[in-house]
Amino acid sequence: MRTIEWREDGTVITVNQLKLPNETEFLELRTCDDVAEAIKTMKIRGAPLLGAAAAYALALTAHHSKGKDKAALIRELEVAAEKLRKTRPTGVNLFWAVNRILGKAYTFNGDARETAAMIVEEAKKIADEDAAANRAIGRHGASLLEDGDTILTHCNAGALATVEYGTALGVVRAAVEQGKKISVIATETRPKLQGARLTTYELKRDGIPVKLISDTMVGYVMYKRMVNKVIVGADRIVQDAVINKIGTYQIAVLAKEHDIPFYVAAPKSTFDLTHTSAEVTIEERGPEEVLYIGIERIAPEGVAVLNPAFDITPLKYVTAIICEEGILYREDLSSLSRTAEKK
Amino acid sequence: MRTIEWREDGTVITVNQLKLPNETEFLELRTCDDVAEAIKTMKIRGAPLLGAAAAYALALTAHHSKGKDKAALIRELEVAAEKLRKTRPTGVNLFWAVNRILGKAYTFNGDARETAAMIVEEAKKIADEDAAANRAIGRHGASLLEDGDTILTHCNAGALATVEYGTALGVVRAAVEQGKKISVIATETRPKLQGARLTTYELKRDGIPVKLISDTMVGYVMYKRMVNKVIVGADRIVQDAVINKIGTYQIAVLAKEHDIPFYVAAPKSTFDLTHTSAEVTIEERGPEEVLYIGIERIAPEGVAVLNPAFDITPLKYVTAIICEEGILYREDLSSLSRTAEKK
Repeated sequence: MRTIEWREDGTVITVNQLKLPNETEFLELRTCDDVAEAIKTMKIRGAPLLGAAAAYALALTAHHSKGKDKAALIRELEVAAEKLRKTRPTGVNLFWAVNRILGKAYTFNGDARETAAMIVEEAKKIADEDAAANRAIGRHGASLLEDGDTILTHCNAGALATVEYGTALGVVRAAVEQGKKISVIATETRPKLQGARLTTYELKRDGIPVKLISDTMVGYVMYKRMVNKVIVGADRIVQDAVINKIGTYQIAVLAKEHDIPFYVAAPKSTFDLTHTSAEVTIEERGPEEVLYIGIERIAPEGVAVLNPAFDITPLKYVTAIICEEGILYREDLSSLSRTAEKK
Repeated sequence: MRTIEWREDGTVITVNQLKLPNETEFLELRTCDDVAEAIKTMKIRGAPLLGAAAAYALALTAHHSKGKDKAALIRELEVAAEKLRKTRPTGVNLFWAVNRILGKAYTFNGDARETAAMIVEEAKKIADEDAAANRAIGRHGASLLEDGDTILTHCNAGALATVEYGTALGVVRAAVEQGKKISVIATETRPKLQGARLTTYELKRDGIPVKLISDTMVGYVMYKRMVNKVIVGADRIVQDAVINKIGTYQIAVLAKEHDIPFYVAAPKSTFDLTHTSAEVTIEERGPEEVLYIGIERIAPEGVAVLNPAFDITPLKYVTAIICEEGILYREDLSSLSRTAEKK
């Protein structure tokens, strides 16, 4: 099944990623508030998945709307959109999906009922497009991988971070489907451990060899030439940088120091080429994520904590970006940025 | 009190570092086997502390020996030495202390009882010298720190890693004692979390401001110019590299990329200048350290793991080494290496 699905009874089904891999708990989301809560608490996460989730959240609002006319529906959607925009500030796909749905709603010719139906269809289309984009990213990216490669990846840019298949892990999957022998080194990705909990889980399920390392071991495995390429996902790609899960930047610096290619795999819904990294808010999450692992407290009472959820990787550390349209090198991205700015 | 102490009833007292900061459990070690077990399981850790601990382990063997003559005592000491050498292969202070005690025992003129008494005194001397070395390291290193500096440190190179005061944290303490305002950023240091559990605990107790970060956040805090200097300890300093807790190497690479000075603070008992990094065994520890945090399993069953306990930082990333004799730059170390090789 997909990571997120619309059911015709007007609910959205997804899996609680906080409980993986020990427990597979499905979440039945009925309202935009349900979705917003799941996003904030990271029961669902992954920039492309959050795009689809936000679209479905507006679909839930529209589908269950009791607004008498289109104007009332639009007001409800605007309130819902505002709630969604306040969940997590850094990843751009959520904002992109919200704006796309709202834009369609504003310009659509039809009454409230017809508009609601259109929004549900548009949300499904966003999800379908993400699934298709991941397959295309996989196809393009697989051409970069050689038989026998070991790929280091960070966090989870897999099926669980998207509607299905995955971005960084989609590239690995596509290469494996082509018959290449690929193995993966997954960083555990503190503080939320998405690499340990989700990436190893996905890869093991698919029978792709994976080794788990602590985040402290990245330099060592590169120094020992145990890694051929790095592939990560992205939460937002701006003119000058890739913004992704905290820890990405240091892996990129290390890859450059060891002459290891550093690839970013992301759909175009992750691109935000009218902005620069200085304009992006880096989400700072609560200290308890760093201070606790599960129920285990790892530091004394009263210790101050930093907990930025993302970091900024300047493009000079990025070998190429793999999107559904192909492989983009720095010069391609500059030209895309110029085009985006003119719009 | 000191981290490790000899009691005249022939026991050694130390603290179980696995239980800090939540619980202060004192360990009463009565035999060399007790000490070896505490070292293997990391109840005690930190290269300089393990030097003192190994010396005291031989002192326990000698003190409680029932050997009839010196030859019998020597045989007991050799068996004990072999047990100690098999505990942890990477840090050199343990080997250094064992060899120093054995060397003294071989050349000492006296009967079994007198030799045993000499060994106890020599072990105490090793501990006293470590305490004095740490104070001297602090004095020398403090001259490198400026009022207002924020120091990033990794793992725990504090009082708990030594007999008292600490190496890297000794430098911080000495600067604070000089009236400089210093704050610290401590990495949590997965997998064993010595930074989260021990460094924050020591610094909080001393009233030195400390912020805890996940190991993924090092690049970010450097990118944001939140760090002025890095100071770490060492488990072994060879001709071409510093060998220290896993994660040190990547911090050194990041420091260089951000033009942040990277200092190593270690007593001369950590120096092993007749060897190169290629000749050192990097201890690979069990997978459960990565797979579990406390009782919490963080990855699915059957996932493979890498768990090197140390990494290798080539000297080109090291700004200087602070030892009890002063501040050594790369050229000083080369000249020391040449002298060591000639011996």
